[in-house]
Amino acid sequence: MIYLDNAATTKMSKTAIDAMLPFMDKIYGNPSSLHSAGQEANEALYNARERIARVLGCEAREITFTSGGSEADNQAIISAARIGERQGKKHIISTAIEHHAVLHTLDRLKKEGFEITLLNVGENGIIEPNKVKEAIREDTCLVTVMYANNEIGTIQPIKQIGEICRQKGVLFHTDAVQAVGHIKIDVKEQNIDMLSLSAHKFHGPKGVGALYAKKGIRLTNLIDGGAQERGKRAGTENIPAIMGMAAALEEAVGNIDCNAKKLTVLRDKLINGLSTIPHSVLNGDTTKRLPGNVNFCFEGIEGESLLLLLDDRGVCASSGSACTSGSLDPSHVLLAIGRVHDIAHGSLRLSLSEENTEQEIDYTIKAVTEVVAYLRSISPVWRDLENGKQEFIIK
Amino acid sequence: MIYLDNAATTKMSKTAIDAMLPFMDKIYGNPSSLHSAGQEANEALYNARERIARVLGCEAREITFTSGGSEADNQAIISAARIGERQGKKHIISTAIEHHAVLHTLDRLKKEGFEITLLNVGENGIIEPNKVKEAIREDTCLVTVMYANNEIGTIQPIKQIGEICRQKGVLFHTDAVQAVGHIKIDVKEQNIDMLSLSAHKFHGPKGVGALYAKKGIRLTNLIDGGAQERGKRAGTENIPAIMGMAAALEEAVGNIDCNAKKLTVLRDKLINGLSTIPHSVLNGDTTKRLPGNVNFCFEGIEGESLLLLLDDRGVCASSGSACTSGSLDPSHVLLAIGRVHDIAHGSLRLSLSEENTEQEIDYTIKAVTEVVAYLRSISPVWRDLENGKQEFIIK
Repeated sequence: MIYLDNAATTKMSKTAIDAMLPFMDKIYGNPSSLHSAGQEANEALYNARERIARVLGCEAREITFTSGGSEADNQAIISAARIGERQGKKHIISTAIEHHAVLHTLDRLKKEGFEITLLNVGENGIIEPNKVKEAIREDTCLVTVMYANNEIGTIQPIKQIGEICRQKGVLFHTDAVQAVGHIKIDVKEQNIDMLSLSAHKFHGPKGVGALYAKKGIRLTNLIDGGAQERGKRAGTENIPAIMGMAAALEEAVGNIDCNAKKLTVLRDKLINGLSTIPHSVLNGDTTKRLPGNVNFCFEGIEGESLLLLLDDRGVCASSGSACTSGSLDPSHVLLAIGRVHDIAHGSLRLSLSEENTEQEIDYTIKAVTEVVAYLRSISPVWRDLENGKQEFIIK
Repeated sequence: MIYLDNAATTKMSKTAIDAMLPFMDKIYGNPSSLHSAGQEANEALYNARERIARVLGCEAREITFTSGGSEADNQAIISAARIGERQGKKHIISTAIEHHAVLHTLDRLKKEGFEITLLNVGENGIIEPNKVKEAIREDTCLVTVMYANNEIGTIQPIKQIGEICRQKGVLFHTDAVQAVGHIKIDVKEQNIDMLSLSAHKFHGPKGVGALYAKKGIRLTNLIDGGAQERGKRAGTENIPAIMGMAAALEEAVGNIDCNAKKLTVLRDKLINGLSTIPHSVLNGDTTKRLPGNVNFCFEGIEGESLLLLLDDRGVCASSGSACTSGSLDPSHVLLAIGRVHDIAHGSLRLSLSEENTEQEIDYTIKAVTEVVAYLRSISPVWRDLENGKQEFIIK
């Protein structure tokens, strides 16, 4: 199996698993318990929080552990909305290419009476910082822009957007679920007020994430109950997963340059290989792009068939985000960068990890090329295109 | 170490760990992905849901996976409140001894304009079903009563309360976090509409739980985003933890009679042993009680000192719920069953698991007896009591 769906989820690293195991049946106490079994767990929790904070460039008390990236996104946005509400500010700025954890939370706030501005991105999937500046109003309480896109891998000018928000006195949140562990992030240096991350995107465990919120930002609970996480997120702390996340994050960030270099070579080899397929187009930017992300549209192809035939050949790929794969609608991200409906349906995302090899990339180029050719050979749409009865959209 | 804090959290069983491991680095796909790695994970998810539903006596589609018991409690109560709101019903009935995940969620709804009736329990910690019946009004949208109390272990007459609610057409939720895996539960047979459970209370993993909600009950999202869990709980499914939970639940319920029998013997031995300490009193009921729960108050004792000295002797115990151990307030549960402030402060909860031995119980009886005697010997309060300057509350 050639696993090229690392943006959906990753295989846990040995380091992360080894970091979790002792906390399952040896140091298993509840960190809220006074006894030594509890205090041992509590020290681990403290230690993990310190380590994660160090990697992000913030203070330990600015980290709140959550059940994952979606929860962190929801909590960040709801918290900023409540802060804004108290100040009579009910306008939020975001982009058209955010993850659904952001977009659907904004939908909910819209129903409550918030006004949402979704900025358009350029054809390369990048947002212009100036557009953010122009959109900020007196009553704007939050700007939320994802760090790197989960489908097309574009990396946004986060530092500049953060600077604009700071100057205007508006809270700035970034959904960094696809970025953390893959590109260097320093929340202070990059003017980030709130940041969401998810461990299973960098070879850590599923079911755990974190929300960085700059001190002074009052979080709103999504889950009420016990006083865990300074009273802002109830529920017994998931110590094994938190330890696994800390270990995975340190490992990923420790190797970040080396991994990025290796991945960029593989990625560009794959991009070059797939670019030779006629009537294909790369989605996203060529350089401001996650080192492991490749996303193409092929004219005259139906994405689902492509995935199934690639799976038959042992290649695990995706047509967009895993979270919406059950849906028949084309990707909102591809539509936002200007791909028309028919073309957006024929998309392929290949997301690499540092475990992938050059041989796997060679094999994948061959497999995709052959499968695209085969699907076109049996496609009536393709016949019409070749016969000139219909015009090619991708030249 | 003698671990007697199983109501706070348990050691994971080998069965549960073994069930998790393959899903960390072998079957690690995202169940939303179309490829075989994703579909293999999706089958596991389906399988776990079926198995958990079978144990509870419900259908698979009635199970929603959450990050734990607190999230399940929050989602159940918020969902019922939203259903009620749409029908103009904004009255909720609960009890004074609920977990904070329930009480604090009710507090939040109170701020929104809901009216909350918290019923008192008897001196034994049991709620009279008739009290529930009398409290139900035309505008009652929810009755939420915990299955078994986390501090004093009392088991409520859930089936009768459920029957009353069904007759009156009011939704009935039970926080069964302490009960599931320890006493037999059948949601259909017991007239339960919604039930919360948490895996780490029955030797499963932390960070995972479930909400049973009878079909037809429309859940309200706490976390918006992807379409996981039929669109009602966003976030990549925590497959390893869900598999660990299913295995732990089957194991616990498979051995439930045998474990309960063993635990009841150990529990009663411990209760009898501690009852010989002068001026001590058992909290909760003698028979309608979780098989592993022991809870005492000792006059003239400060609970925290007791815990620390027991810890020195290798006994891990608790004074109340772990979730509130950071607080200096006495337990709301002990106050609700009529213990005065000073007495409630001198409480000790010992919660057993089937791994505890008779030798450990003997040792614990001796340790508690000696530590209580020692703490009294250095206590000015105790001197006043013995000199008759103050009157004993516990005779």
